[in-house]
Amino acid sequence: MRVLVLGADGYLGWPTSMYFAARGHEVVATDSYAKRKWEAETGAMPLLAVPTLEERVGIWNAEGRGTIDVVIGDLTDADFVHDLISTTQPDAIVHYGEQCSAPYSMMSQEAGVSSQVNNLVGNLNVLYAMRDHAPGSHLVKLGTMGEYGTPNIDIEEGYIEIAHKGRRDVLPFPKRPGSVYHLSKVHDSHNIEFACRIWRLRATDLHQGVVYGLRTPEMGDREEFATSFRYDEVFGTVLNRFLVQAVAGHPLTVYGAGGQTRGYLNILDTLACVELSALNPPEAGDYRVFNQFTEQFSVIELAHRVQSAAKRLGIEVEISHIDNPRVESESHYYNATHTKLVELGLEPHLLSEDFIVECLQALSGLRSRISEGLFLRGVTWQPAVRAGL
Amino acid sequence: MRVLVLGADGYLGWPTSMYFAARGHEVVATDSYAKRKWEAETGAMPLLAVPTLEERVGIWNAEGRGTIDVVIGDLTDADFVHDLISTTQPDAIVHYGEQCSAPYSMMSQEAGVSSQVNNLVGNLNVLYAMRDHAPGSHLVKLGTMGEYGTPNIDIEEGYIEIAHKGRRDVLPFPKRPGSVYHLSKVHDSHNIEFACRIWRLRATDLHQGVVYGLRTPEMGDREEFATSFRYDEVFGTVLNRFLVQAVAGHPLTVYGAGGQTRGYLNILDTLACVELSALNPPEAGDYRVFNQFTEQFSVIELAHRVQSAAKRLGIEVEISHIDNPRVESESHYYNATHTKLVELGLEPHLLSEDFIVECLQALSGLRSRISEGLFLRGVTWQPAVRAGL
Repeated sequence: MRVLVLGADGYLGWPTSMYFAARGHEVVATDSYAKRKWEAETGAMPLLAVPTLEERVGIWNAEGRGTIDVVIGDLTDADFVHDLISTTQPDAIVHYGEQCSAPYSMMSQEAGVSSQVNNLVGNLNVLYAMRDHAPGSHLVKLGTMGEYGTPNIDIEEGYIEIAHKGRRDVLPFPKRPGSVYHLSKVHDSHNIEFACRIWRLRATDLHQGVVYGLRTPEMGDREEFATSFRYDEVFGTVLNRFLVQAVAGHPLTVYGAGGQTRGYLNILDTLACVELSALNPPEAGDYRVFNQFTEQFSVIELAHRVQSAAKRLGIEVEISHIDNPRVESESHYYNATHTKLVELGLEPHLLSEDFIVECLQALSGLRSRISEGLFLRGVTWQPAVRAGL
Repeated sequence: MRVLVLGADGYLGWPTSMYFAARGHEVVATDSYAKRKWEAETGAMPLLAVPTLEERVGIWNAEGRGTIDVVIGDLTDADFVHDLISTTQPDAIVHYGEQCSAPYSMMSQEAGVSSQVNNLVGNLNVLYAMRDHAPGSHLVKLGTMGEYGTPNIDIEEGYIEIAHKGRRDVLPFPKRPGSVYHLSKVHDSHNIEFACRIWRLRATDLHQGVVYGLRTPEMGDREEFATSFRYDEVFGTVLNRFLVQAVAGHPLTVYGAGGQTRGYLNILDTLACVELSALNPPEAGDYRVFNQFTEQFSVIELAHRVQSAAKRLGIEVEISHIDNPRVESESHYYNATHTKLVELGLEPHLLSEDFIVECLQALSGLRSRISEGLFLRGVTWQPAVRAGL
């Protein structure tokens, strides 16, 4: 299979590129390094300094574990995307190439608008280029469970059958997302659904939960193959941040009551889900949505799990309830269906205390690289100009 | 009331500006003249050459029927929008300022992407500027009934109560729109709902049907106050085009079978609906949706009505079923609720044969200005590159 990975420099894009290459697929890996610029803007940096994509691919290719081609370019450049897709003729296009941080999108008007434009234009360019040059290829798009928000009914996988006034239809599941970034993914989803319906493209929209984990078998413990693991408030995700906070002796920063419940998955399961999707493409014209997570947790539950696992290592971890910088419900119903990937063969890596202990052990060797100033960055969903009113 | 009209140079923006001014409101009218550029790109032009907004306002203000202030600028310019809204301090912001043509958005990748970016960025800039400078003001946003598509259940006004697996919630009505332009309005709707929920703004999203009509009392038969009435395939709407075709002796161009059913309203009712919305603002934090149309028709039904009215004037009108350039169902269920504006006091001007006859008479005096080459422009939802596959 020929796999084009968009956003291949990122936390998931790089492990995905190695994963497919190691399994004998032809991989073309693309990135614009935009995330590195956004990180620099916010003063964030991953736990390990990550070599450029070109450097990492150079080392990887020299080892004979499969070949990755690198192309550097920006998805918002229409000509670049047309060239890339017409030249590559991919079977699957795995699209991680977006601004992926909710807090970043809430930092300022400029960051919010540019996040939406970046994601919308890049994704549209991919759809048009597929239409024109590779209409049979399969878009595997990374969306987010955050598109749904927290409705008071069970969340289904992309669609819901609605009975209303004596009639029935199966319609897109309503979306009420919680940040300007999450909105950009909702816009993408609508655009992709349209492209499949009108142009007979085929796409799988992976509405992914919050990913955690440091390592995949392809990287092993080789620092040059490490992925851009982030724990800062802007680009890091919650469980990864709690793990680093525990190792640093910093209280776990729970937002408000901590009853916010979301879907989570191990980075190993992200790779398996993307592979299962790519190996089982939908029919032409089909826009399908998979809810890509394996378990639901509340934030406070995760904090307690980290606390308990840390105790096994003799680390006493505090939990600190800080004022919630986000506007979100801290106590709500949440139950999301996630059976389609399991039906395709996913065998979930559930979150065990042993796994948390392993992560804490791996991170304790990196303690000197942790910058505690990154745990809280003061991004708020309601800026001061409003608070002053 | 202080009313800021965005997109005041347009078919609806200009009559709205006069309408509010004539009723004693302070009106600030803004436009970037972008639509004139898009028209020029496609070789389209309105039936009457319309003076610039500044010229028309100059004549209007000299007549003492109320005062309109004009500010020329582009909503995609964040600084311009911040200045405009902080200076104006509007009670209501009537937002027509978007690329409004489905066929234009389907002409090319460039037109599609720029339509979405133009509409998304302009609307976001308005939301951010409201948040920062006029959080109490009321956004009256022109959306479209086309956001819903043609579901097999009744369309409700923005929200639907869903019973699912023993639980219930009222959620945004699912959207499955039919063009890249219509998608841009769906994106706007999601962004506005978010801004109301997170920043406690207030907005009315008018999901408008297809508007028809030439004249409003404020313009009378004064050519200098005429609005930019369009009948071309790209920027014109269907009933207006049929009226012009009938006068020109051209067959009415029905797309396919003509069973496409949509909501329609008289331009007089657009003005009344916008006024009723502005006079009855929602609470802070409230995002409400009104379905703004008065009657449903299929395209073939409209063609027959025009044919029958023309007969009264001794004009024999042919109906021509042309290949549908759009990808849409030509036979489908359609029933959309539209009671909220009636509850606020709307008294609909329903489509009568007398009204069609009046329009045909008014248009027959302008017959020499009709350019028949504009009736069909060859825009297709599925470009040739796909047809060749």
